[in-house]
Amino acid sequence: MNSDSTGVLISEVGPRDGLQSVTTIMSTAAKCAWIDALARAGLREIEVGSFVPATLLPQMADAAQVVAHALTLPGLRVAALVPNRRGAESALAAGVHKITVPFSVSEPHSLANVRKTHAQMFDELASIVALRDARYPDIEIEAGLSTAFGCTLQGVVPEDDVLRIAVAARQCGVDEVGLSDTAGYGNPAQVKRLFRRLQQELGAAAGGAHFHNTRGQGLANVVAALNAGVTTFDASQGGIGGCPYAPGATGNIVTEDLVFLLEAMGVPTGIDIEQLIAARERLAAGLPGEPLYGYLNAAGLPKGFSYATGQPAQ
Amino acid sequence: MNSDSTGVLISEVGPRDGLQSVTTIMSTAAKCAWIDALARAGLREIEVGSFVPATLLPQMADAAQVVAHALTLPGLRVAALVPNRRGAESALAAGVHKITVPFSVSEPHSLANVRKTHAQMFDELASIVALRDARYPDIEIEAGLSTAFGCTLQGVVPEDDVLRIAVAARQCGVDEVGLSDTAGYGNPAQVKRLFRRLQQELGAAAGGAHFHNTRGQGLANVVAALNAGVTTFDASQGGIGGCPYAPGATGNIVTEDLVFLLEAMGVPTGIDIEQLIAARERLAAGLPGEPLYGYLNAAGLPKGFSYATGQPAQ
Repeated sequence: MNSDSTGVLISEVGPRDGLQSVTTIMSTAAKCAWIDALARAGLREIEVGSFVPATLLPQMADAAQVVAHALTLPGLRVAALVPNRRGAESALAAGVHKITVPFSVSEPHSLANVRKTHAQMFDELASIVALRDARYPDIEIEAGLSTAFGCTLQGVVPEDDVLRIAVAARQCGVDEVGLSDTAGYGNPAQVKRLFRRLQQELGAAAGGAHFHNTRGQGLANVVAALNAGVTTFDASQGGIGGCPYAPGATGNIVTEDLVFLLEAMGVPTGIDIEQLIAARERLAAGLPGEPLYGYLNAAGLPKGFSYATGQPAQ
Repeated sequence: MNSDSTGVLISEVGPRDGLQSVTTIMSTAAKCAWIDALARAGLREIEVGSFVPATLLPQMADAAQVVAHALTLPGLRVAALVPNRRGAESALAAGVHKITVPFSVSEPHSLANVRKTHAQMFDELASIVALRDARYPDIEIEAGLSTAFGCTLQGVVPEDDVLRIAVAARQCGVDEVGLSDTAGYGNPAQVKRLFRRLQQELGAAAGGAHFHNTRGQGLANVVAALNAGVTTFDASQGGIGGCPYAPGATGNIVTEDLVFLLEAMGVPTGIDIEQLIAARERLAAGLPGEPLYGYLNAAGLPKGFSYATGQPAQ
């Protein structure tokens, strides 16, 4: 990495992965103010909500309203998570630019999380792709392979299983397949190996990395993924989030610390760190009493710090 | 990295770097019980104290007693930090196997920390080497280049300065030159570049890495250092420590999280993680009320976790 590096795209997932994991329900106005501040800081893709029944996740009940607001922000790519066809219908009707469908490589986790076998998940995926193809041809669909680095229920997840499901999901017609370390089990050697295999199998359809920081390995895994050529990283402001169905598995990698890592390495992100820390205050104001994580906000930028030169990835 | 990797040596610096940075003074008995537990977990090198005037660092007043106890533990390499010739005399007389002399690449930091210019530090180093050569020929001397990745006083520290001082320190007769990220300013690209240059200049006399986690980048920097071929890492149980003269610069990388990172990657450390977490209880008992850091102790080992195979570095 140096100052001529191609940059990366950071996809902020706090408004979805973060907010669905905390018990406090952030008001719609507070969500919109936070998203505005994130966009001002230079975030170009934000997963703003999850389209699931409000009885299951009341924190996400206003997803369509939040999408409508986010669509007014110029240049922002608005993403949402959908667990099934019904959620996809709502998200696509709301006008999102991208939907992510989680798919657990661990079948026990899939059954616990969305009560579906792998076969049922492939049917769901094909149905979502058919809907998109028929009515929303410009909208991108990503399959996010959860438990790709291990599972709290199954334990070790064989790498061949990850690749097999990645290839089959791509054959269902999704545009991109990303890998998620749902349980925070991943290590840098595994990350590098698995993303390289994913790229060999899927080429440009190999997607980004979604790491949890459960065991403190999140940014170490980012370095390995960068070495493998990954150019899209999910992160969550203040590190809020984590999968509610994986016990003990809390904490996304912290957007602030990730941006600092990348910019310091000479990898442009397009994000202004001071504005990003200002956005953190919006988050804190909207979630009074909830713990936020991260180091950079407390330590500040190094004396003499320089941003990377060049353009971030699109 | 894979299961055939050469392992690494983790040098536990908590009893020195950690304890000198907290205001609580741990009793000699508690220090010895903690060091026993660390050795039981498989730590093979422990920096057990600092030989400085007790008026400056009362936490280290019992360094000679702690060294005497640590020397009774079979197979343990007992290290100490010494800021000057006088400290070296005491440490060598106490019977340590290794002394580390910190040397700030940033001259403003050197003046603030030990009130010495670079020229005065080189004189001190030469005097310490002369003492060792005359009376303790088997004892190893490492120069630990602090502020090697940036300084809270000077800001950017040119890489050429680091290399120049590393070469000159080696010419003074030290056995090894390590690099310390005193301020927590380092990034993985810089770490990889600087350790590679150090190895090119010094060959086998290129020493290990001492990273602080001030901005959450510690383990990311470890991955980069591993890529550069570094095989010795300082770490502190519970992440206690940091340089008291660099404002805001607190927190060593956490030994527990580092061992998990390495073993999960297939890099053998020789350390038993459950015993290491047991040692953490000794630390907590000896420092009531002090915050400890880290993730692995709370999250536990992954289901189905396997240790690396092979032998750790000596």
